[in-house]
Amino acid sequence: MGVIALTTDFGWGSAYVAQMKGVLLSATPDCRIVDISHSIKPQDVQETALLLRGTAFSLPLGTVHLVVVDPGVGTDRRAIAIKAKGMFFVGPDNGVLGDIAALEGAEVVHLNKPEFFREPLSTTFHGRDIFAPVAAELAAGLELTDVGTVVTDPHPGLLGTPSRNDTTFIGQVLGPDSFGNLMTNLPGNSIDQTKPISLNDMDIPWVQTYAEAQKGELVVLLGSDGFAEIAVRDGSALEKLGPSVVGAGIECPMVESAHVD
Amino acid sequence: MGVIALTTDFGWGSAYVAQMKGVLLSATPDCRIVDISHSIKPQDVQETALLLRGTAFSLPLGTVHLVVVDPGVGTDRRAIAIKAKGMFFVGPDNGVLGDIAALEGAEVVHLNKPEFFREPLSTTFHGRDIFAPVAAELAAGLELTDVGTVVTDPHPGLLGTPSRNDTTFIGQVLGPDSFGNLMTNLPGNSIDQTKPISLNDMDIPWVQTYAEAQKGELVVLLGSDGFAEIAVRDGSALEKLGPSVVGAGIECPMVESAHVD
Amino acid sequence: MGVIALTTDFGWGSAYVAQMKGVLLSATPDCRIVDISHSIKPQDVQETALLLRGTAFSLPLGTVHLVVVDPGVGTDRRAIAIKAKGMFFVGPDNGVLGDIAALEGAEVVHLNKPEFFREPLSTTFHGRDIFAPVAAELAAGLELTDVGTVVTDPHPGLLGTPSRNDTTFIGQVLGPDSFGNLMTNLPGNSIDQTKPISLNDMDIPWVQTYAEAQKGELVVLLGSDGFAEIAVRDGSALEKLGPSVVGAGIECPMVESAHVD
Repeated sequence: MGVIALTTDFGWGSAYVAQMKGVLLSATPDCRIVDISHSIKPQDVQETALLLRGTAFSLPLGTVHLVVVDPGVGTDRRAIAIKAKGMFFVGPDNGVLGDIAALEGAEVVHLNKPEFFREPLSTTFHGRDIFAPVAAELAAGLELTDVGTVVTDPHPGLLGTPSRNDTTFIGQVLGPDSFGNLMTNLPGNSIDQTKPISLNDMDIPWVQTYAEAQKGELVVLLGSDGFAEIAVRDGSALEKLGPSVVGAGIECPMVESAHVD
Repeated sequence: MGVIALTTDFGWGSAYVAQMKGVLLSATPDCRIVDISHSIKPQDVQETALLLRGTAFSLPLGTVHLVVVDPGVGTDRRAIAIKAKGMFFVGPDNGVLGDIAALEGAEVVHLNKPEFFREPLSTTFHGRDIFAPVAAELAAGLELTDVGTVVTDPHPGLLGTPSRNDTTFIGQVLGPDSFGNLMTNLPGNSIDQTKPISLNDMDIPWVQTYAEAQKGELVVLLGSDGFAEIAVRDGSALEKLGPSVVGAGIECPMVESAHVD
Repeated sequence: MGVIALTTDFGWGSAYVAQMKGVLLSATPDCRIVDISHSIKPQDVQETALLLRGTAFSLPLGTVHLVVVDPGVGTDRRAIAIKAKGMFFVGPDNGVLGDIAALEGAEVVHLNKPEFFREPLSTTFHGRDIFAPVAAELAAGLELTDVGTVVTDPHPGLLGTPSRNDTTFIGQVLGPDSFGNLMTNLPGNSIDQTKPISLNDMDIPWVQTYAEAQKGELVVLLGSDGFAEIAVRDGSALEKLGPSVVGAGIECPMVESAHVD
């Protein structure tokens, strides 16, 4: 029984989600559907990539991630599928899957075999007509190379990697979670967590748990996904710092043995 | 394993949804539940009918649609079930199912057999006490006429059909999808897609895909459900035209062979 | 096939929900997951307790409720599990489960056996690392006392019980449902439903169904969960009375045989 995990910007309660589930359940009646999110902001490819960072490898091995945030539907952007670390990913080649495709050992194929597509193929809804049918085939046991042709030039990832000099990482605020905690691209295990980080000319201290912070205090801690995260005890860092903080740079001292791939 | 699809205005996260699922899972532990929407605007029967247009026949054959948008609960509005094109529908006879009931070959029954109802029967929650128990019976294999008595006068549908003269359809904007695209009741295959449509004194051109439009341009295209749809490239037609556009008339030239049933 | 029901404040579409489901599906691939709510207001323990009042015993017997609204994660608040009336509950000992723990016959254990926890144990996400793994074990058949040590002093409940004098109950408005109906802690079967209740110096009449009320009229009726509920016909009592009504006292005459446990 394969797991198929859905990440879209269709909105909870959208007919489009039901139509994709209809395709999945008709093709593989025993598949297990997990709704990861349907509330990605419309066409927000970076938010999608960031959500996938936290969910891609959380579900059981062999899960097929069906990712449909697709502003370029109907253009010549490619449809792709990826196998990485035992998981499958199906979606548009517009960057939402770029960080996955860049993982060591990842294989990428171009979905160019119309025999797997739904007939008639619409120009506005490849989620239903291309991605869902292919996801069902992968969940049912087809190999990655059965459904497309290998490509080596997928769209680059969107989450960036911190730059560095001898002693310092310079990373970025990527976006908020639902509590207003700010996620970053700074890998916690490479950062010296005894020294404050620097964001917009503020020095922000590290804590191990929310409980160490004062109510309302801005702190940085190791998020549950292994990256540094900026938070406010019993509050929202996003609200405290304002939406313009997304994209801001962060400086922090690295541990001596750190290396960034 | 029957599929039961839920469409309600209870709100995602409502106790009422959980209570209905409890009834379904207790009666038919192996049924498959699909949450189509719980975010219909409270008591909005037309939004419900429009959502059903896009989802009713998308799920596997034999699916039971459990539809609970029921402002008249506790009055003498009837409870009904419908079989149409191999699918079942259970809900109040207040118009939400009227367009389904009007389909060729549809059978409608009045749910008047208390032996299928939950005891004690509340006056405020027929979703849990009448509709869910009956939906579970249909998913488990009962025939439509096992659960009620045939009626021939269901509440009329709410989506309307375009009026026409010799050369022109006059249809209506029915409502937005989650992207702000405006859905209409104009069947795409009967419209001359080489000529602009007319809405609020604007002429709006047809495109085949979003990519043909300029950023911000208002266009009409064939929606994935086969009806004309008004959209803005990389934007929201609902926002551009304002909420008062819902209900507005649309004129468009028909193809010569067109006919409306 | 055990049912595991999720109630959290993570937000629909949160990576945290997907991560918990990954733990559940990896440990018990055949479990049935029901999403009760992920839209509890962040850290709102009373809203959680109120939602649980309506859902706790609605699902099939043996259901494991996984409840993660946990402002004190990383402090010394205990992790607990409860068995009550044939259902299981797993979550933090911060009051969200206090009303359940106070039910007659309820057993409570402290989750103090690290062999059931996920490794490495984070300080910020016990939902994934403690509560989900234990919920999976209970769904798979472990006994309550297998996963922890009995405690007799769980955090008290949050919903309160009405006070009383010889003839009157004094209860409280607990919060709205998704329609703006106001739920209370007044048990309907102990109240004299022939006499109005008194709220903020208004006398509010009882009705049996919404249909008995005038459009816009404020009424009290027996909610589907057995408690008195304040409603407005075709409207929202919360909107009409304003958010400050939550927490307000309500006086109502009791029936002669009434008793409150």
